Amino acid sequence: MDYKKIFEEIHAELSKIEDRGHVADYIPELSKVNPNNFGVQLTTIEGEMFAFGDSEVRFSIQSIAKVFSYVLAYSRIKSELWERVGVEPSGTAFNSLVQLESDKGIPRNPFINAGAIVICDILVSELASPKEETLAFIRELSGIDSINFNYRVAESERASGYINMALVNFMKSFGNIHNNIEEVMDLYFHICSIEMSCEELSKSFLFLANNGVVPYSGKRVLSPSRTKRANALMQSCGFYDESGQFTFKVGLPGKSGIGGGIVAIHPQRYCITVWSPRLNPKGNSYKGMLFLEEFTTHTELSIF
Amino acid sequence: MDYKKIFEEIHAELSKIEDRGHVADYIPELSKVNPNNFGVQLTTIEGEMFAFGDSEVRFSIQSIAKVFSYVLAYSRIKSELWERVGVEPSGTAFNSLVQLESDKGIPRNPFINAGAIVICDILVSELASPKEETLAFIRELSGIDSINFNYRVAESERASGYINMALVNFMKSFGNIHNNIEEVMDLYFHICSIEMSCEELSKSFLFLANNGVVPYSGKRVLSPSRTKRANALMQSCGFYDESGQFTFKVGLPGKSGIGGGIVAIHPQRYCITVWSPRLNPKGNSYKGMLFLEEFTTHTELSIF
Amino acid sequence: MDYKKIFEEIHAELSKIEDRGHVADYIPELSKVNPNNFGVQLTTIEGEMFAFGDSEVRFSIQSIAKVFSYVLAYSRIKSELWERVGVEPSGTAFNSLVQLESDKGIPRNPFINAGAIVICDILVSELASPKEETLAFIRELSGIDSINFNYRVAESERASGYINMALVNFMKSFGNIHNNIEEVMDLYFHICSIEMSCEELSKSFLFLANNGVVPYSGKRVLSPSRTKRANALMQSCGFYDESGQFTFKVGLPGKSGIGGGIVAIHPQRYCITVWSPRLNPKGNSYKGMLFLEEFTTHTELSIF
Amino acid sequence: MDYKKIFEEIHAELSKIEDRGHVADYIPELSKVNPNNFGVQLTTIEGEMFAFGDSEVRFSIQSIAKVFSYVLAYSRIKSELWERVGVEPSGTAFNSLVQLESDKGIPRNPFINAGAIVICDILVSELASPKEETLAFIRELSGIDSINFNYRVAESERASGYINMALVNFMKSFGNIHNNIEEVMDLYFHICSIEMSCEELSKSFLFLANNGVVPYSGKRVLSPSRTKRANALMQSCGFYDESGQFTFKVGLPGKSGIGGGIVAIHPQRYCITVWSPRLNPKGNSYKGMLFLEEFTTHTELSIF
Repeated sequence: MDYKKIFEEIHAELSKIEDRGHVADYIPELSKVNPNNFGVQLTTIEGEMFAFGDSEVRFSIQSIAKVFSYVLAYSRIKSELWERVGVEPSGTAFNSLVQLESDKGIPRNPFINAGAIVICDILVSELASPKEETLAFIRELSGIDSINFNYRVAESERASGYINMALVNFMKSFGNIHNNIEEVMDLYFHICSIEMSCEELSKSFLFLANNGVVPYSGKRVLSPSRTKRANALMQSCGFYDESGQFTFKVGLPGKSGIGGGIVAIHPQRYCITVWSPRLNPKGNSYKGMLFLEEFTTHTELSIF
Repeated sequence: MDYKKIFEEIHAELSKIEDRGHVADYIPELSKVNPNNFGVQLTTIEGEMFAFGDSEVRFSIQSIAKVFSYVLAYSRIKSELWERVGVEPSGTAFNSLVQLESDKGIPRNPFINAGAIVICDILVSELASPKEETLAFIRELSGIDSINFNYRVAESERASGYINMALVNFMKSFGNIHNNIEEVMDLYFHICSIEMSCEELSKSFLFLANNGVVPYSGKRVLSPSRTKRANALMQSCGFYDESGQFTFKVGLPGKSGIGGGIVAIHPQRYCITVWSPRLNPKGNSYKGMLFLEEFTTHTELSIF
Repeated sequence: MDYKKIFEEIHAELSKIEDRGHVADYIPELSKVNPNNFGVQLTTIEGEMFAFGDSEVRFSIQSIAKVFSYVLAYSRIKSELWERVGVEPSGTAFNSLVQLESDKGIPRNPFINAGAIVICDILVSELASPKEETLAFIRELSGIDSINFNYRVAESERASGYINMALVNFMKSFGNIHNNIEEVMDLYFHICSIEMSCEELSKSFLFLANNGVVPYSGKRVLSPSRTKRANALMQSCGFYDESGQFTFKVGLPGKSGIGGGIVAIHPQRYCITVWSPRLNPKGNSYKGMLFLEEFTTHTELSIF
Repeated sequence: MDYKKIFEEIHAELSKIEDRGHVADYIPELSKVNPNNFGVQLTTIEGEMFAFGDSEVRFSIQSIAKVFSYVLAYSRIKSELWERVGVEPSGTAFNSLVQLESDKGIPRNPFINAGAIVICDILVSELASPKEETLAFIRELSGIDSINFNYRVAESERASGYINMALVNFMKSFGNIHNNIEEVMDLYFHICSIEMSCEELSKSFLFLANNGVVPYSGKRVLSPSRTKRANALMQSCGFYDESGQFTFKVGLPGKSGIGGGIVAIHPQRYCITVWSPRLNPKGNSYKGMLFLEEFTTHTELSIF
């Protein structure tokens, strides 16, 4: 299929629509991005690549990184994981404390902030050097060694991260954080600060479209069954309280970040990444969501 | 694939597990069912049928009927539908009024009770004889004219349906019910009372696995795009606040009812229906859920 | 104390303030009131009366009537009452279903709508002719036989009372309504439709300032201990989710209605009633609240 | 009135009732208390004192201290205080984050944990040496210089204070904490650690029964109007989500702490303090609540 042509057509259509989104500005580093950046990359499991626009420009992947940390934890521990975090969509805003209160400190899923913090706590328990090993894991998935944290972003997140500090303290009061809060949050803030391009993200997520095996290296990351479950989890929970909308309109498992990136998987086929920094009121890329909706409509392909 | 053999193997495994579920007993008619009934039917889009156990025994399909009424409404009206009901999972119990209060009378999706009541209100507005036409629609999908309401069940539901009466009155206070409450609820209680067998359900849901076309008759019910969206909605919202679990463990779009039935779709392949009356605490068939989890694990097939 | 002079002074002060309230308009009958009406009446337990403005004009007492029905029920049954309704302020808006859901159908107190409906259910169980006997009780308290229901208002309330119908159905689903819903709501809507003047209200509430004895007739309505508790309940719960504000600023037990009336009690001293139809966003009389705040500030008298 | 005899009678009655409460044990220091301690002290504004049992034994006053910090802040700043904290009862458990979320970081009142933390933030802004000056204020009210923090308790509270850390971080995310979190919480944890006896508490709260003037020293702490409002606030909000019960059954403004102490005020008359360490499920002294209910019943005196 001529994906490149489809990208161009959709982009032309979207150019006519005013982007009503707003760049995330709660930390200075994020607000400095050029809001007009727009990149797309589709990589098939056979290794074909289709790029458009700023597909090689790195950006702050933010919550997309929660998939990496989740997969790393999930590849190492088993059922205990699901005693500490659920698999249900949150039904409310991504940082809600209400839910955590009624659920006694168990976050709804690993992709809301609270759940990703529990995953970090698990990694701190499991790994000797959590930050370094998580970064090494992402480099291995993508095959690109220059991927790195942005330390200024991590520091900025920490300095303004009062809601996340509230979440971790609250979960600790329920006994669902086992390690030192500072150490857990240090990992969390660093993971969210990682910078990658659409191309790098598409390559590093491709194992999820390939039954759990990295196509380039042949290395197995997750079993086929766990790969399906990871995809299912992205389907249910990848877009905060807009997950139902994304499932309904796009029909692919995926994950967004407030840096404006969205990664989506078509199992057995491809991984597609879009980047457009302006966000809709739910915190997902305004044009990225529209692009992917048009993309699965044009290609008449979705998992449903 | 030898589905029949797989059914037998899974059934043998499940026989070793104590069924810790409880038959729905809030109305006398439902509690009279033999709790040991167990039926399975898989029908492929090519017309192959694989049956097991009590697959031809009719039971109360209850909430599974919400898919029929939703599809009927969705095939007739367009975007206005989504101004009156959402596509997000509820995140809370299936009859929660809390959500309705914070969302100003707009139910989260068409498969929770409140949403299905709004769908009934739409059908009352759209159809000259709502009950008769909805029943005719289901008969047409399945090709079986003897499918019918159970009037005693409908009457029983009405007599004890205080929560549903609370829901419809509450939504009316927000202006999201346009017709007479009695007429809307009459349709709602009748639709839920319909009785069908696993075989009949599998046949009548098959158009959702077949891009919107009934395989037997060649009749188009929904466009391919709307069919995908209907499936996506079942994926996100088909199992009350256990939708994430079903997505995670089974990986197919589906819908359950408190009569103990579950229907699931594998797009482009088949429809499978399981019936086992004892329910887990979330209101879904205890053994039905386990059966389908084992089924997609054995066959290594799911949409993810 | 020269209450009349104080009334005049406060009224002069308040005349300089723009009344930013809005007359209740959810039923046509209430919206027809002259919004500039303003009446005050203070009656001491010794029988002195101080009037100002439209103190003899009857208006729809609405929720103020909940005190009458509560006292009537409380004078007849004992501890069982408190198994079916609480004594805590609601903390949320006066018709919230959320609370009822988490509290399993037990309303927070007898002065929110849900609680007043439970009280009506108790009266339907206890009384042979609930409407007639409740009206007779109010006539006896005031000594005025012409006090009556406004049947048009009652009918209008019923026709638009979807939230109240949601409440009663919801409580019935929890088993906290014992009688036929129509009969209970018929009593409820009629009680709320009663029309009385400031003068009549002050006289009929005076027993609460007089240890439970009607000063005119010497008839005991409640024991001293129960009278204290009825006053305490008005203090905690008399003004929806503005009860804390009224306690803080006025410092007297009282009850408001969306007809714009407010009754307040100074135990061992007097009953004061204010009427001004425009309501603040919490549903309490805008100028009535200000008037009473100024009144207890001027007189330097409150129960605290 | 022979209060001492009344104390003895009520104590004899209560001895027959099993104390079903539990001593607070979330920090080791609190759990070490002798659960059978029982003390009462009533001090009139004329200076008469009536003591019973362990009235001179010091205990951890915990949340009772929130009245001191509130009065100190209220005596120094004016209306701005009420932009940062409300006067409504919480309606939910004392450390609820739900409410804070829906109210955008504004705590319901100064006596729930969140509200007391905002008061500490105000004191940190207002005072040069917040801890020392708050302690000096309490010593001045009571006339007893040996009153002090328990540094081990303060340290223990800090080490286990995850919910409070969640609250302060959450409020900071809304901009309702102006100072450094560590400094604010240091003050908070120290204030709660103060140890006083029933006798000392009764003396130091007596100004609230005396129009705002300390009877011993003649020093005015609050204006008469503010004194009334402080009492009103204790009436509405002094007992977490049991405030309505206390108002209903006891009928006096008061404040409890999880050390098992309760202070109550009868304006123009007396201050009474009870101490009994075992707590009911709402976190208030089990026997202390019963004692005060019996006390106002026996004396037939309450503010209502």
